Amino acid sequence: MPDVSARTRIKRNAQRAEYDRAAIYKILDGQQICHVAYVIDGEPRLIPTLFMRRDDYIYLHGNRQAALLEHVGAGGLAVISVMALDGVVVARSGFHCSMNYHSVTLFGHGERVSGDEHLSVLNDFVNALIPGHGDAVRPPSAQELAATTAVRVKIEEAVAKIRTGPPIDDDEDLAADVWAGEIPVSRQVLAAIPAPDLKPGLDVPDYIHRFGRTT
Amino acid sequence: MPDVSARTRIKRNAQRAEYDRAAIYKILDGQQICHVAYVIDGEPRLIPTLFMRRDDYIYLHGNRQAALLEHVGAGGLAVISVMALDGVVVARSGFHCSMNYHSVTLFGHGERVSGDEHLSVLNDFVNALIPGHGDAVRPPSAQELAATTAVRVKIEEAVAKIRTGPPIDDDEDLAADVWAGEIPVSRQVLAAIPAPDLKPGLDVPDYIHRFGRTT
Repeated sequence: MPDVSARTRIKRNAQRAEYDRAAIYKILDGQQICHVAYVIDGEPRLIPTLFMRRDDYIYLHGNRQAALLEHVGAGGLAVISVMALDGVVVARSGFHCSMNYHSVTLFGHGERVSGDEHLSVLNDFVNALIPGHGDAVRPPSAQELAATTAVRVKIEEAVAKIRTGPPIDDDEDLAADVWAGEIPVSRQVLAAIPAPDLKPGLDVPDYIHRFGRTT
Repeated sequence: MPDVSARTRIKRNAQRAEYDRAAIYKILDGQQICHVAYVIDGEPRLIPTLFMRRDDYIYLHGNRQAALLEHVGAGGLAVISVMALDGVVVARSGFHCSMNYHSVTLFGHGERVSGDEHLSVLNDFVNALIPGHGDAVRPPSAQELAATTAVRVKIEEAVAKIRTGPPIDDDEDLAADVWAGEIPVSRQVLAAIPAPDLKPGLDVPDYIHRFGRTT
């Protein structure tokens, strides 16, 4: 179970924090992009990247020369953040204006993924990015496998932070002539665009039509 | 001008990197949420937060006890990432599947913002989150000002990374019976929801109707 320490304990707006594993995993499984921070020579590094979760691990992958994968794959500590904006909270005072969102922050040490797991992780990454497409493409070549590093980060500590609902204004501001409420935002998936060099006669597959419908 | 060093020089897919100030600032100005990483006791910390740019500085604000603001406000080094997903790139091989996006990564040291600038920054933050609303709300109280810290981070080094367009497949995969193309995604703004305790007779203002139309 993800642990909670001084690093992940929410001190302010503690009512917005969730330490429950199911809530944390649900947020992680609904997102594809995370930010990963790590430390090199005492300096912070930060990179947005695709991820996927399996059990208590976050998987990352990319070019084998990427500093992130080298460092975290060698056992380095990573902090990973996943955040989705759900809306803007319009309050009657600037102080109480806010955002609705759901987010997870987690800490863990990394390790390289090798052998059969390497191959299966790369295939799952295709399905994590485009559900169904991993079953349509050819397997990676030996050269592609060698060029791609996969790393997993153990979810050692994690916290979810969620804000929903209307603004919470001070009582003395409720009578002000200022509009207040929420402006919800979400991700919109537009119509798929075939590649200019697409082989003639290939229709858009059902799994592409379904993209984004369940996330 | 933002500088480029080993930290920000893009080594892979260098054709996707832009070091031009105008390109970098355009990406920053189109986004409201950033991720900030910094180092405490040799360990990485990472937080998503609202930001705004003024000249060559990124401004952050929040509760005065926030560790991020304390550390970066005291001159700490921060790395800030802004990333917007523009689509999913469906290639004929898993290896060439990718994402379309525009992003900026920047490094800089922080400093506290005080006095008149503190007040004007807090007001601008309301307009950065909800354009027009900063002019509708009352000014912050002395208590609210004291509770809120503002910090700015100098944009000392920065790089933009952008990917657009269709997949780039290997020639030998072009004849495969695998659909390829792009699935564009964007942010969708839904209808504003008035607060349950909204003062009767207050219509949705034009600036709320316009929210998201220009971003």
